[in-house]
Amino acid sequence: MIRGLRQIEPYRAGAQPRQLDIIKLNTNENAYGASSKVKEALAGFSADQLRRYSSLDQDSLRQALSRQLGVDASQLIIGNGSDDILSIAFLTFFNNPEPILFPDLTYGFYKVWADLYQIPYQEVPLAADFTIKTEDYQRPNGGIILTNPNAPTGIYKPLAEIEDILKSNRDVAVIVDEAYINFGGQTALSLLEKYDHLVLVRTFSKDASLAGLRVGYAVASPRLIASMNAVKHSINPYSVDLLAERLATAAVEDWEHYERNCRRIAETRDWFRQALIELGFMVLPSATNFVLAKPQGISSRSLFEKLEARGIFVRYFPNVKRIEDFLRISIGSREEMEECLNAIKEFVK
Amino acid sequence: MIRGLRQIEPYRAGAQPRQLDIIKLNTNENAYGASSKVKEALAGFSADQLRRYSSLDQDSLRQALSRQLGVDASQLIIGNGSDDILSIAFLTFFNNPEPILFPDLTYGFYKVWADLYQIPYQEVPLAADFTIKTEDYQRPNGGIILTNPNAPTGIYKPLAEIEDILKSNRDVAVIVDEAYINFGGQTALSLLEKYDHLVLVRTFSKDASLAGLRVGYAVASPRLIASMNAVKHSINPYSVDLLAERLATAAVEDWEHYERNCRRIAETRDWFRQALIELGFMVLPSATNFVLAKPQGISSRSLFEKLEARGIFVRYFPNVKRIEDFLRISIGSREEMEECLNAIKEFVK
Repeated sequence: MIRGLRQIEPYRAGAQPRQLDIIKLNTNENAYGASSKVKEALAGFSADQLRRYSSLDQDSLRQALSRQLGVDASQLIIGNGSDDILSIAFLTFFNNPEPILFPDLTYGFYKVWADLYQIPYQEVPLAADFTIKTEDYQRPNGGIILTNPNAPTGIYKPLAEIEDILKSNRDVAVIVDEAYINFGGQTALSLLEKYDHLVLVRTFSKDASLAGLRVGYAVASPRLIASMNAVKHSINPYSVDLLAERLATAAVEDWEHYERNCRRIAETRDWFRQALIELGFMVLPSATNFVLAKPQGISSRSLFEKLEARGIFVRYFPNVKRIEDFLRISIGSREEMEECLNAIKEFVK
Repeated sequence: MIRGLRQIEPYRAGAQPRQLDIIKLNTNENAYGASSKVKEALAGFSADQLRRYSSLDQDSLRQALSRQLGVDASQLIIGNGSDDILSIAFLTFFNNPEPILFPDLTYGFYKVWADLYQIPYQEVPLAADFTIKTEDYQRPNGGIILTNPNAPTGIYKPLAEIEDILKSNRDVAVIVDEAYINFGGQTALSLLEKYDHLVLVRTFSKDASLAGLRVGYAVASPRLIASMNAVKHSINPYSVDLLAERLATAAVEDWEHYERNCRRIAETRDWFRQALIELGFMVLPSATNFVLAKPQGISSRSLFEKLEARGIFVRYFPNVKRIEDFLRISIGSREEMEECLNAIKEFVK
């Protein structure tokens, strides 16, 4: 046995079943496909171009995002999915002796990065109604990270409350992970002008239907972005491949397609949530492309297993306290959700 | 100003000039393009598939590599370029109090990862002839990493000497970065059966003409690969995108195309090196797709600048001791190298 081997408990992602005839509602993927511009960009790409390295700064994608979001290109850094961006952000910003703060129920990866990079942290319990309480983030800390809307709850924290947290923590980085923001919440982009310690993290995996392409980004002050770039260039400078940059740029330039799909998903979600409530389920209010629901008349485990046997995959967290009795169900197409609802109705009878 | 910001000196990659009419010999990219199977795989790919996450384990690519290399799929881990794999390897294996060892002249990134992850290290000077001396790696250490053939020297260290280093360091990980192995050296793959502390790192960026796609991998014992996977899944589990896996798999299945191109490049390299020697240049023996050459009758800076003005980009290391007077010239197509040679002849007159 060799010396110096790191022992670590990795993040466990949702299962990625291979069957083609399933309804996959377990990893919050987008229900709809690519826009015509993305398809054209792919069709027009020659494989011979791949012999060259991809760009170091993703200038074309940053320019497109700059126009879309109304920020300067120097306020943007692109990475290999938002996991890459978040990992870089943890290394860049969380180097204080005080613990960083994040909710006990949130993206499960925050704890994993903190452990890996030996960053002290404190998991702050959500309130009884599963909301994030502002006052819990108004005490000494080494930095703050929140997902808004939060996952796996789906609950959105109003912008004014995010601003209160920013006001109380001006000397540390406050990261707001907006992976699901385009399914209903109001983005904190407008706060960037006033608060140069705010870091917004976004992904192309949810609203832009490009989970398989691995593109994410952060928006912050040019100074914080420069620090993140130094870390990015100390780990893997070419992490965004040429095709990923090309197709993500096309997606931004064709954004109406994705906005339309996000609206459809939000409509389906609201209808689906209401239908579950009518079955007696407890369903948290969601501003995302999933719902967190506590079944009525059947255990979460039993419902999870019965759905899986029917080829409908949802997410179940038997080892996560307070939500052991819930299922997280991604919002697919209206047809998929009708099939899912019919199956649930059958099983709870 | 916020607290807790990391200060770091990042790796500086070679410039990526945008002009299309240049001869780009500065980042060791492959002179030739993609195979027909890669082109078919790209043409047959539908952008709609990208709404799903990529795979977590790159099973299809690992199976293809398993057949090609004659190792078990459990001996393989795939990453977002070999930089990603190397970064993961540093975190996984180099957790000892003793310094890790690597040459003073080698891939400049080793030092950057060691700094970033606070790993103690010692840069071991190459011998006067720029070779790696085996006895320098036969003393207490926390781990070893070598590039073979080495970069930026291009010099290959014979397999028996690699084995001697393995024999003397059985209780730490010994990483051999084989980025350039298919341009002339003999791979250490055959040593894996006897030495379960050996980790080979490979990339698709050089021999497989896929620098822009970002795919790299490691080959080692299943146990070491499992440890690397735990770290990979603690940073960015989906780092290899769907298209990257698909096209890299096609490249492996069409490997003769790439072997042929590697042979052509090696022939061009040997001819080009000889031509420089005839001009009086000192050129290190190379088993890679580049040469490290000390100009004669002109300073390295002057030659670098004159070539650049002519649209021929090579790499110059004015701040790296012992090779300040050298230029590293990637091997392009025969036509590109003839143009490069003619320009050099003109400038040294």
